[in-house]
Amino acid sequence: MNNDLSVKIIPLGGVGEIGKNITAIEAGEEIIVVDCGVAFPDEEMYGVDLIIPDITYLIQNKDKVKGFFITHAHEDHIGSIPYILKQLNVPIYGTRLALAIIENKLREHNLIETSNLISVNPGENVDLENISIEFIQSTHSIAESCCLAIKTPLGVIFHTGDFKIDLTPIDEKVIDINRISSIGKEGVILLMADSTNVERSGYTMSEKSIGNTFRRIFRSAKGRIIVATFASNIHRMQQIIDASIENNRRVSFSGRSMENISKSAKELGYLHIPDDMLVEIDDIKNYSNENITIITTGSQGEPMAALARIAFGNHRKIKIERDDLFIISASPIPGNDKLISKVINQLFKKGADVIYEDLEEVHVSGHAYREELKLMHTLIKPKYFMPVHGEYRHLKHHKDLAISLGMESKDIFILEVGNVLEIKQESAKICGKVTSGTVLVDGLGVGDVGSLVLRDRKHLAQDGLVNIVVTIEKESYSIIAGPDIITRGFVYVKESEELIKELKQIATEELQNC
Amino acid sequence: MNNDLSVKIIPLGGVGEIGKNITAIEAGEEIIVVDCGVAFPDEEMYGVDLIIPDITYLIQNKDKVKGFFITHAHEDHIGSIPYILKQLNVPIYGTRLALAIIENKLREHNLIETSNLISVNPGENVDLENISIEFIQSTHSIAESCCLAIKTPLGVIFHTGDFKIDLTPIDEKVIDINRISSIGKEGVILLMADSTNVERSGYTMSEKSIGNTFRRIFRSAKGRIIVATFASNIHRMQQIIDASIENNRRVSFSGRSMENISKSAKELGYLHIPDDMLVEIDDIKNYSNENITIITTGSQGEPMAALARIAFGNHRKIKIERDDLFIISASPIPGNDKLISKVINQLFKKGADVIYEDLEEVHVSGHAYREELKLMHTLIKPKYFMPVHGEYRHLKHHKDLAISLGMESKDIFILEVGNVLEIKQESAKICGKVTSGTVLVDGLGVGDVGSLVLRDRKHLAQDGLVNIVVTIEKESYSIIAGPDIITRGFVYVKESEELIKELKQIATEELQNC
Repeated sequence: MNNDLSVKIIPLGGVGEIGKNITAIEAGEEIIVVDCGVAFPDEEMYGVDLIIPDITYLIQNKDKVKGFFITHAHEDHIGSIPYILKQLNVPIYGTRLALAIIENKLREHNLIETSNLISVNPGENVDLENISIEFIQSTHSIAESCCLAIKTPLGVIFHTGDFKIDLTPIDEKVIDINRISSIGKEGVILLMADSTNVERSGYTMSEKSIGNTFRRIFRSAKGRIIVATFASNIHRMQQIIDASIENNRRVSFSGRSMENISKSAKELGYLHIPDDMLVEIDDIKNYSNENITIITTGSQGEPMAALARIAFGNHRKIKIERDDLFIISASPIPGNDKLISKVINQLFKKGADVIYEDLEEVHVSGHAYREELKLMHTLIKPKYFMPVHGEYRHLKHHKDLAISLGMESKDIFILEVGNVLEIKQESAKICGKVTSGTVLVDGLGVGDVGSLVLRDRKHLAQDGLVNIVVTIEKESYSIIAGPDIITRGFVYVKESEELIKELKQIATEELQNC
Repeated sequence: MNNDLSVKIIPLGGVGEIGKNITAIEAGEEIIVVDCGVAFPDEEMYGVDLIIPDITYLIQNKDKVKGFFITHAHEDHIGSIPYILKQLNVPIYGTRLALAIIENKLREHNLIETSNLISVNPGENVDLENISIEFIQSTHSIAESCCLAIKTPLGVIFHTGDFKIDLTPIDEKVIDINRISSIGKEGVILLMADSTNVERSGYTMSEKSIGNTFRRIFRSAKGRIIVATFASNIHRMQQIIDASIENNRRVSFSGRSMENISKSAKELGYLHIPDDMLVEIDDIKNYSNENITIITTGSQGEPMAALARIAFGNHRKIKIERDDLFIISASPIPGNDKLISKVINQLFKKGADVIYEDLEEVHVSGHAYREELKLMHTLIKPKYFMPVHGEYRHLKHHKDLAISLGMESKDIFILEVGNVLEIKQESAKICGKVTSGTVLVDGLGVGDVGSLVLRDRKHLAQDGLVNIVVTIEKESYSIIAGPDIITRGFVYVKESEELIKELKQIATEELQNC
């Protein structure tokens, strides 16, 4: 083997942060990119809708980039694709379901004609010149999630994607432990693994475990059942559908993403529901309430999603009725607790009943807990390890976990966004940083809002603004009109007349002093 | 007894919301007020510092108001006192510790001279003309918290305050179960009880239970230990001090409220620490790191508090050193998760170790879980019940809990802020609403910011502002100068030259059309 061979791993997002997962892997003249996700703004990012990665490095090397390889179809792994494709149009490889969900997105952005989506089944390989990528069946809170075994001239890089070890998944597509074990036995130079739940001890419960809860709740419900969950969680949908059919309830989908994804998933055979058990939302009135289940978006309390609109009486088609039972089948993503609580309070106030995670087991996590992570490490036994998919605290604890399993600290690399991990025949090290960071999306604008604009918005948000308008004669500098004081978001003008008067006074004096 | 007798209970805050606890109880010509707390703004309340209750009703009836009766010294029960006293100067009754903490506040507001603070020991009564108020020893996450037995001409109203049933409290002042039982036996017309943790099953752990965790952690720590907790949690402080002394560590306090409260608590005998074990923060450098514990504010990740300043290198006196161990001995209040996580990430990045609730049992709740609530209900056996201290979901679940214990729905009252619960000899009902609501504090301004101002701030925050300045000749209406476009928080001007040019164009055309 050539001693000058090197492979570079460059996370352009997803390390030291939750969201915006995207990693470039470079071998010789080839770059492949794993995932292409978005992140969501925090409260300080006034007016920002989405955060996408800065892909300057990929554009600078665009002739090398052979494609995006998508582990699964969650927003934090695919959400930036429409924005990135406009800058860099390369093929996108993924499973059928992932591509169907991406297609919906591309259609909304009018990009479907120009894009090149290539379907790969779990178990199959994509062979490029230097690199070959194997998609391996995994389990997660979305169907057809995959681990990737990325075969480079220096050896195999194993990327877990987002995973849990679910041995009784709803679709019976068990995570391919045997294949993972073989790959581990053959030797892996680098493991990149999901760190989300490294702070939780034990095992996640199987998705199947909550089916029993649903069945018990559904049996005793008297009115409609309205379940809010993530639109992409097709296995959750299936369990809700199964419990509904058992209890002679027809199922309706509400919310754009829920309608789109359920339709695609049904067409592709991932979601099983007899046509006569499926009801359009306009037709639910033709059935009595105890024969209806509605599956809806808005499980994070998002003010514009279906659940919040139902709660606050703004939904055009669904009004709260007597004996309605709402189930919020999701965990609050950090930062969303208050939004969800507002919705729950409102539903209770309107007389509905509401079941959520604090009260019943209506949700399980899709990310591996500590014991599952240990199992993955033990199967793969990598030479080097790079924790991914987590804030710094998670990466740090994942490093500690690897050390507790026998790895040495020097072989574990916590990267920042843009850092380059260079692996050579006998060594690995972090060498430098490429251009990288965040690009903010505000409405139709991509990248025209940044820290200075946000700083101004913050000032405006906290203090409002005071405009002083005055007309001055050009030659004599005497005041012709004004000063007039116009304020927005400052104080109630009526109740602060004194203050405004004083402002005028000061403005006049200052002008005269000029 | 007079059949026209009536007692009114009017919550002016604290029901259907977390925070701002304040309730008026009116019998004949007397009104007493239980607590006087603040609430904290949510993210949508741009620029707002605090939320205080609208006490119009009390001011309209100011001759009746005999005083504020403080159950305990948490901000959500005492934080509005300085603002309210300026409008309504009546006596404040509370335990010595509560008054000491209130005194610190009043001193900052220059109100200490004019205020009338009256100390009451647990077990003592305050006798007014119609009403008599008994303070009863309770347990909570602050020392000397009390339940109140409010004896009215119609019978006893029992207000739990914030409580848990801790039978092994640090100060050995066990909640006075026997007295509560006697009061219950004598008959209670109305129970008002803390609903915070009604969604949690089982019992809270005793405060004492985390002492062992501290001791174990302290024994193996090599450098300084820096513990962040609530300044008012004197029992927590005591446990940290005890573990420190056992391990030959001197203790220093950091953060204004931590310094103030620890000083008051020590002087009053609530906090026990030998003088030679106490070190000023300026003097910690005289000891080796393994002999120092620092107790600090900022456990909620507040950007201006000591912990965040240490983490981000802005603390004047404390810099992170090798082997520093940070302990965050608190739960995130909903909405604060992201702030805390930022601080934790930063501490890890700087090489410190951090222990928090997800990893170790370094915090217990101060609010009763379901089994404790059931015990309280069973001891009191009230005629009527009004759940307090919670969002609507908590009040609703507390109502359900009371029903599960045998009460009838018609005897349970969920009130909104300002609602009047009128109790008569043979009946109770909600009758009407008094003026009430929220008053926003923004800097020095109290009440000069409201929904219209906030709406404008929200628009400014999300979109920024565009100012078009143009000078027009008075008679001919011709444009003399401009239009000039000035933006703040809109877009980067440099990178959006085209857009600005277009704006000018449109403005000119519109002006010419006028």
